[in-house]
Formats: sequence, structure tokens, C-alpha cells
Amino acid sequence: MSKTALLPIAEGSEELEAITVVDVLRRAGTELTIASVADISVTMSRGTKLVADAPIEVCSGNEYDLIVLPGGMPGAEHLRDSRILTEMLKTQAEAGRLYAAICASPAIVLASHGLMAGKKGTCYPGLEHSLADSYLEGEDVVADGNCITSRGPGTAMAFALKLAEMLEGKDTAENTARGMLAE
Amino acid sequence: MSKTALLPIAEGSEELEAITVVDVLRRAGTELTIASVADISVTMSRGTKLVADAPIEVCSGNEYDLIVLPGGMPGAEHLRDSRILTEMLKTQAEAGRLYAAICASPAIVLASHGLMAGKKGTCYPGLEHSLADSYLEGEDVVADGNCITSRGPGTAMAFALKLAEMLEGKDTAENTARGMLAE
Ligand SMILES: [Mg+2]
Ligand SMILES: [Mg+2]
Repeated sequence: MSKTALLPIAEGSEELEAITVVDVLRRAGTELTIASVADISVTMSRGTKLVADAPIEVCSGNEYDLIVLPGGMPGAEHLRDSRILTEMLKTQAEAGRLYAAICASPAIVLASHGLMAGKKGTCYPGLEHSLADSYLEGEDVVADGNCITSRGPGTAMAFALKLAEMLEGKDTAENTARGMLAE
Repeated sequence: MSKTALLPIAEGSEELEAITVVDVLRRAGTELTIASVADISVTMSRGTKLVADAPIEVCSGNEYDLIVLPGGMPGAEHLRDSRILTEMLKTQAEAGRLYAAICASPAIVLASHGLMAGKKGTCYPGLEHSLADSYLEGEDVVADGNCITSRGPGTAMAFALKLAEMLEGKDTAENTARGMLAE
């Protein structure tokens, strides 16, 4: 059975971060759903118009091997303010399943909801204070147990490949990177 | 006045390549239009559903500082087979304005229409024979005059930053890369 991932998006989510994760994980064989926390048609941070696969309400009854949050503002604020997504993330963390966030989202979403507690992580430069004792300096991607975080659009490929490795295994992740010329 | 860019997309175009260019160039201040060669709603190569800004017919009367083609299959074949896009590319090349392509597209689109003639370039591994004497080994991004080519999703960031430099200048490109943590 395939591994499953949920990628929630909102108005102003960072499209390069979102699409890097979508592309890498689908190439790696993960069954990934792009879920909107509001309207199904979403205008991303640089104006890209995406149509999500489903509204988050429809996804809330499912269990996913990974929930992964793109960054971008105000996208990260909308993700933070989604009650449904917040519940799903808390359940995910408590169950020991993988949850991940990049750029603004580790600070704006995860830290806001206490989901960085006891975890080390990283985020976009300038937001480190939000991670408090959780902030680990000098890393593009931090994986601490079931919590994986990263910094920004330029680290999105490394972030996505780390998620592919954790979901689908090292060989699959390496083959995926090779096929993308992303080693 | 802003520099302008046209990014045509089709069913099966590579979304990470497309969105990397969109994101980088819009951050750099370029006025970029995503144009569909068919229906306005486009399903990209890994299932991402994009809504283009305009159909290519509407764009065909405009002049753009850059026309840039994402790769992906069968997307590149659909771009190759668009009469309107082909005319725009030929006019672009003859006028000495910038035209660019990544992954499958230098081979499937540009070489098919004689637009690599007298130019050096690169493409996705395995398609080099289509570039014949134009193929330049060992480079992630090749800029030969007004023709800029690159290899695949993993080289898309370097490709997009090169285009940003050529359109908006070195300082702007460097600042854009820095803000994206992509230096
Ligand atoms: Mg699998
Ligand atoms: Mg400008």
C-alpha cells in the first residue's frame, strides 16, 4: 500500500515550496493530496493559480503518513488559523506520525500550536525567535523524530527529498533525485 | 517599464520547472504571463492543476522580452505542436529577443523548429542527439546569445536565476536568490 501525504495550501502559500514537495513525493510513489483550507481554487504567493485536489474538510477523517506545510505569507497564517488543520496536526504529532513544515510555517503554524515543543527545527531567517529553544542553527533541513522542518524556497528540494527518504526509503529517494538531476 | 516574459504551458508540462521560473522571475520584478496552448485549466506532469493567466491566442499579438518553455512530457510535444507558439518563437529568435527552454523542450520544441541552429545548448540527458552539433556537454545552464537552455527540475533554479540576471540585472538576480536562500 502506498504511503500517503497531505499538503494543505491557502491563499498566499509559497508555490515553489508547495510544488517542489508535490513533484518530488509523487515521483517517489507517495499518494499525495493537495488540500485547500478554504476555496478549492487558490492563488499562491507569487500569483500562481492552483486548483487543490480536495477541501480540507473532506480529508479530516483520513489518516496520512505525512502532513507537510508549505511556507509563504499570508499562507502560513491561514494554515495556522484553520481549526480542522490544527486538529489534524495535533493528532498527527501525538500519534507519532510525520509532520513537516518549511519557511514561515515552522514558526507561524507549528510553534504557534505548541508542535515544536521538545523538538529541534529551523525556519526562514528572521523567525528563529518563534522557535525559541527549538531553533537549531546552521541546517537547511532538520529531522527530529517525526518533526521535519526547513528554511525556504532554496532548501525546498533538500526538504522534499528528505521527506521522500523517510516515507519511501533511501534507494527510492536517491533514484528520484537522480531522475530530477537533483543529487 | 517592466520586463515581460511569457511562459507557455500544456497538459503534461513539468510543474516544478514551470513554477520555479514563475516564482523567481516574479520575485525579480518581471511581468510574467502563464499562457496555456489549449484549455485554460491545465493538468501538469505530476498531476498539479494550474489555471493559466491567459490562452496563447490572446498573447500572440504581444511582444515579450523573454519566451521561456518548461519541459515535461507530453507537455513539450504539445508546445511543439502549437502553431501560434511556434510562430511567436520564430519571431522572437529572428528579432534577437530572449528565448529559453529546459529539460525536454530544447530538444522537442526548439530543435524541432530549427531554433537551436547556430546555437549551443543543453537538455535532459538522453535527448542530446536531438541537439546534434548544438549540444554542449557538462553545463547545467547554457546561455548562447539570446538562447538559454537547461537540463531538468534539479537545474531549474539556476536556469531561472540566469533568466532573472539577463532580464533584470545581476544585482536584482543576486538579491532574489538571497531572499529565496538559493545562492
Ligand atoms: Mg510506495
Ligand atoms: Mg523591473
